[in-house]
Amino acid sequence: MKHSPEQAFVIDPQLSLDTHWLFRWRTIHVLLHRNAALPWVILVPETELIEYHDLPASQQQDITEISRALGHHFKQQMGAEKINFAAIGNVVEQLHVHVIGRHKNDPFWPEVIWGKTLPDASYDEQQIHTMSQYLRRNLTKQL
Amino acid sequence: MKHSPEQAFVIDPQLSLDTHWLFRWRTIHVLLHRNAALPWVILVPETELIEYHDLPASQQQDITEISRALGHHFKQQMGAEKINFAAIGNVVEQLHVHVIGRHKNDPFWPEVIWGKTLPDASYDEQQIHTMSQYLRRNLTKQL
Repeated sequence: MKHSPEQAFVIDPQLSLDTHWLFRWRTIHVLLHRNAALPWVILVPETELIEYHDLPASQQQDITEISRALGHHFKQQMGAEKINFAAIGNVVEQLHVHVIGRHKNDPFWPEVIWGKTLPDASYDEQQIHTMSQYLRRNLTKQL
Repeated sequence: MKHSPEQAFVIDPQLSLDTHWLFRWRTIHVLLHRNAALPWVILVPETELIEYHDLPASQQQDITEISRALGHHFKQQMGAEKINFAAIGNVVEQLHVHVIGRHKNDPFWPEVIWGKTLPDASYDEQQIHTMSQYLRRNLTKQL
């Protein structure tokens, strides 16, 4: 997954397989996890670094802004009560940040959801489009 | 765990119970998890906010700087290969960030360690003192 300035940034194939690509904002790719049991977005900054603490402040701030918009959306529209924010990377090395909306009646509360088998649930095209539009609108407002 | 400007900031009792308090740097408390099976520090910013994305940029940057020093220490001195960075807060609401050093031979790799029962292991006073000194020295250098 290395890239040079001459090459386009490539999202890790496993992350691509698990998600719907929503959009790119600044240098951050916004991916919606295919499993709709919980609101779950994965943010992939364009970087070759693998540790969150090594990311430049500007990319961390962009991730924070997207997370804030996501957190608002998850809480206002999707019933979330708490946001889990995590850069783990034990399985997929490419730096990615999970932003997950949790609520007290979700299938695994209060446990974390990584490594769990979530109940089957999927988004339809309209839901994906709506979330994407909402987030882009909110991020644009902040510019 | 609310606090007002007149009151000292109080660390959540459950976090206090699980950790050794190392030091406070700027507005961030640095707590070493009592279980020594893995290098695991919990950072508690002085705030009443509960979501990482709501933290002011200055506190996020301070957390990043401490995490960078921790990451270096965990990798150079404690055999870690990957850092897990996460603000979860499903059990303890007070905002806290986990910084955990992982390696491919640790008891749960590549799974996450939250919710797992770690093998018994503890630090002695000298180890706690040494880690604290190392981190403070590295953070002071950055000033």
